Amino acid sequence: MRQATSTKETILESAIYLFNTKGFDGVSIRDIAQKARINPANIAYYFNNKQGLLEACLVAFFEPYLSFLEMEVRNLDHSAPDLCLKKAVKNILQFQSEHHLLTRFVWREISLDSQVVREIISSYLMKERFLFKEIIDQLVNSEKYSPSSKSFLIIQLKGMLAMPYLNSQYLREVWNLYPQEAYFATRYFQVIEQWIKDTMTESINAKKILC
Amino acid sequence: MRQATSTKETILESAIYLFNTKGFDGVSIRDIAQKARINPANIAYYFNNKQGLLEACLVAFFEPYLSFLEMEVRNLDHSAPDLCLKKAVKNILQFQSEHHLLTRFVWREISLDSQVVREIISSYLMKERFLFKEIIDQLVNSEKYSPSSKSFLIIQLKGMLAMPYLNSQYLREVWNLYPQEAYFATRYFQVIEQWIKDTMTESINAKKILC
Repeated sequence: MRQATSTKETILESAIYLFNTKGFDGVSIRDIAQKARINPANIAYYFNNKQGLLEACLVAFFEPYLSFLEMEVRNLDHSAPDLCLKKAVKNILQFQSEHHLLTRFVWREISLDSQVVREIISSYLMKERFLFKEIIDQLVNSEKYSPSSKSFLIIQLKGMLAMPYLNSQYLREVWNLYPQEAYFATRYFQVIEQWIKDTMTESINAKKILC
Repeated sequence: MRQATSTKETILESAIYLFNTKGFDGVSIRDIAQKARINPANIAYYFNNKQGLLEACLVAFFEPYLSFLEMEVRNLDHSAPDLCLKKAVKNILQFQSEHHLLTRFVWREISLDSQVVREIISSYLMKERFLFKEIIDQLVNSEKYSPSSKSFLIIQLKGMLAMPYLNSQYLREVWNLYPQEAYFATRYFQVIEQWIKDTMTESINAKKILC
């Protein structure tokens, strides 16, 4: 059993590494088998084909990712919404740092205009939208933020969350920053925390003006 | 001459469209020729090979993109730094909306860990860093923002600028927003303008505390 898990994980890790250097379509099952030092038949056994590998990556990313948001939506009952959002952001950044290669592959792959992406959108990303909205609605419930403004806040936040992981080579070579390291997640969290604070202040100020 | 430009542009447009749906490595010269309804020899004539097409895309994107930043760095001599940054952001968003397919392809492609990307980083993205730093240094010259904080501000801004264009299918299907339309650039500009204002206020408040 231990052996099985390990082979499966080795295949996934090798696949993600290659997808990030050559692109999903630039990698064959044979390339992955060679990199993982296993027989190609093993890949067929565990994942069927390349499509199966892609699906396994998406599940491995989105299941934990959405669970961080779900947890904080439940916490809204007894915690302040800004604390819930900060907690979700912290967990997402930490998870993305720990799985930076997977994160990079997933966020890049869903920027394609394909059938697979349409399916991910209609399952995972519609759920993500719902969860983010639950939190943001409670965070910025002033008149200033119309429903359309709130969608822009979520888009802005999503851009911030994904950027360093999607562009880790850029961060490393241009800014000497390493998104896979724990200190990065901590430091970058402070940047987003400031943004949440500013956004809330805006909301409170807008309320004061209305009163 | 008119005909030549037109064939070249048709090839580029067809290539970008296909790269965005199937990924760069999932598209052959034959696919592009078929989509553009031209002879594959024409592609070889204008772009040599797929690598040549990629380079043409990068030049078509980064030359105007960097010129917007260069223009505002020059304007720093006689304009307020926040106005310069806002102007650069406005021009970049407008350009990205007008060339949304090219934008999407370029920002996705540079998230790969490849030799081509290393070359783009050492030319275009190091220049981009220099230009952003020139503006940001004048915008947030308070003690609160250490050089490392400033790099995080630029990373945050870059994430915001690219996100909707990189994920235009997501924006369309989840939020019913169309980044290729002019109203989107205008509306999204306001969101980033607010961020610039908040960041500046932070900087001014930090200064007041220090005085």
